[in-house]
Amino acid sequence: MILTVTLNAALDLTYRVPHLVPHASHRVREVSERPGGKGLNVARVLAALGFETAVTGFAGGETGRVLRSLLAADAAPGPPNGPARVTDALVPVSGRTRRTVGVVDENSGDTTQLNEPGPHVTPEEWETFLTAYRELLDGGVRAVALCGSLPPGVPVGAYATLVREARTAQTPVLLDTSGEPLRRGLAARPDIVKPNAEELAGITGTEEPLRAARAAQRRGAHAVAASLGADGMLLVTQDGAWSAAVPERLAGNPTGAGDSAVAGLLSGLAEGLPWPDRLARAVALSAATVRSPVAGEFDEPTYATMLPSVRVRRSEAP
Amino acid sequence: MILTVTLNAALDLTYRVPHLVPHASHRVREVSERPGGKGLNVARVLAALGFETAVTGFAGGETGRVLRSLLAADAAPGPPNGPARVTDALVPVSGRTRRTVGVVDENSGDTTQLNEPGPHVTPEEWETFLTAYRELLDGGVRAVALCGSLPPGVPVGAYATLVREARTAQTPVLLDTSGEPLRRGLAARPDIVKPNAEELAGITGTEEPLRAARAAQRRGAHAVAASLGADGMLLVTQDGAWSAAVPERLAGNPTGAGDSAVAGLLSGLAEGLPWPDRLARAVALSAATVRSPVAGEFDEPTYATMLPSVRVRRSEAP
Repeated sequence: MILTVTLNAALDLTYRVPHLVPHASHRVREVSERPGGKGLNVARVLAALGFETAVTGFAGGETGRVLRSLLAADAAPGPPNGPARVTDALVPVSGRTRRTVGVVDENSGDTTQLNEPGPHVTPEEWETFLTAYRELLDGGVRAVALCGSLPPGVPVGAYATLVREARTAQTPVLLDTSGEPLRRGLAARPDIVKPNAEELAGITGTEEPLRAARAAQRRGAHAVAASLGADGMLLVTQDGAWSAAVPERLAGNPTGAGDSAVAGLLSGLAEGLPWPDRLARAVALSAATVRSPVAGEFDEPTYATMLPSVRVRRSEAP
Repeated sequence: MILTVTLNAALDLTYRVPHLVPHASHRVREVSERPGGKGLNVARVLAALGFETAVTGFAGGETGRVLRSLLAADAAPGPPNGPARVTDALVPVSGRTRRTVGVVDENSGDTTQLNEPGPHVTPEEWETFLTAYRELLDGGVRAVALCGSLPPGVPVGAYATLVREARTAQTPVLLDTSGEPLRRGLAARPDIVKPNAEELAGITGTEEPLRAARAAQRRGAHAVAASLGADGMLLVTQDGAWSAAVPERLAGNPTGAGDSAVAGLLSGLAEGLPWPDRLARAVALSAATVRSPVAGEFDEPTYATMLPSVRVRRSEAP
């Protein structure tokens, strides 16, 4: 089983409006709701790839209840060769799971995003989570991803703690966050961190991706996989550095492309694939997400076509 | 008891953001939730004025559950001379109560409004509502207000039916809606309709308020109270016509001013006040809502000061 952690899970609402005009009143033409937060998105991609996956983190209030019921509906048994299940291992919290609202302007195709703050997590709830997390790791996890922002009340060093627990349990661990939680998490020596160029520059103070990735690696990560938008990805490891991209630039919606890249890296980590193959999988899944007609989903035929066409180049010898 | 009907009730969310930028991502600084839809707003004002009030309409799904729990929290017994209770007489519906999201730009103070469509109401649910409505009227209602838009599935002639039922029960009835539901409702001869200038022009085809109000009256309303924004209100009845305004133009937030005006007219109708007194109450409540620091609430000291200062002028003899 692969595990993803989403401490600040969300109920993601998408509103379609003909044209968003600030300070005007709009009738929303179409509303959709789905479980959100980076780790839940990663789990959805992993399940679609056929990996048994569990999600943990916090869920509470009426919005948490809706999130869990949508997750249960997704997990209903499908066709024998269809997607694998996502197991709900979320921990109850007294506060209310946050909502995010993405307002899609049907005229321009652009999205305006409104993200509520998360529920306040008490020290007791954080301890309960830690116990549940240790039990999941002890139950046998092939790889774990720690994803996204921290809700109020969770210690800023939370990811460092979770990385250390995973290393104690000998479980490969990927960290995908930003700012101070990333800085602290790095010091606990995760197997992979996956910042984007901006997050990487934010913690290292350098804009040049290869130098910044090496700087992040020196701060403790075994490997740094930096997503560079349309320029693909850069991977820096102790065995050398690689860059990878699809053969041509793709038009589409980048929502969720980073989460699909995490799913690619994490599944490759779980399977013990060589680094270039993990990177190719991440880039192909990311591209198949940009090209998907549904924001945040990946298009399976595009993935199948893309995977063999991804160009992986060695940037540096070890 | 006074009754308000909100067929398309809503859970109103208010998001405060420092500055709304289309197509950007925003952290919401503050989230508030409250029961919404015109009739629920009217009931809140009536309760604050000390009138025992009940609300009916539809509520369903998780959002309906939150709406009803907020209503119950509001209805908790307060101090002996405090606001009266709002009784929850909402009818369950299988669909999900809509949300509205008001995004307040803290920089400009302006609000961008996103209104979800309502739940689909089945013919059986509509019949259940009609039975509940008749029972409420039979239980003794001093006045009833029919407020807002119709959710999908409710017949466009719904308000005409509800006006007729109120007249059969000899209950004074006020109608506050727009478009075709208003046009149909007028023909059933409500005691008062309260359109704004735009709604009035929409159904009568004339922009001049007095002529338009007279035209709406000829279509069936006993009285037409038109809200003219900062110009106050115009009232056309079989006993003559009046206009009223506060002595000076007010700066503030007009959200909910129309609903407060309905509460003023309706409470005056319930108490059998003379027309000019009903109009003065509506105008003073409306002004006290514009001046309130909390959007959609009315400021009680402002109301107490405003009421004696409202200037009511006779426009036409009967």
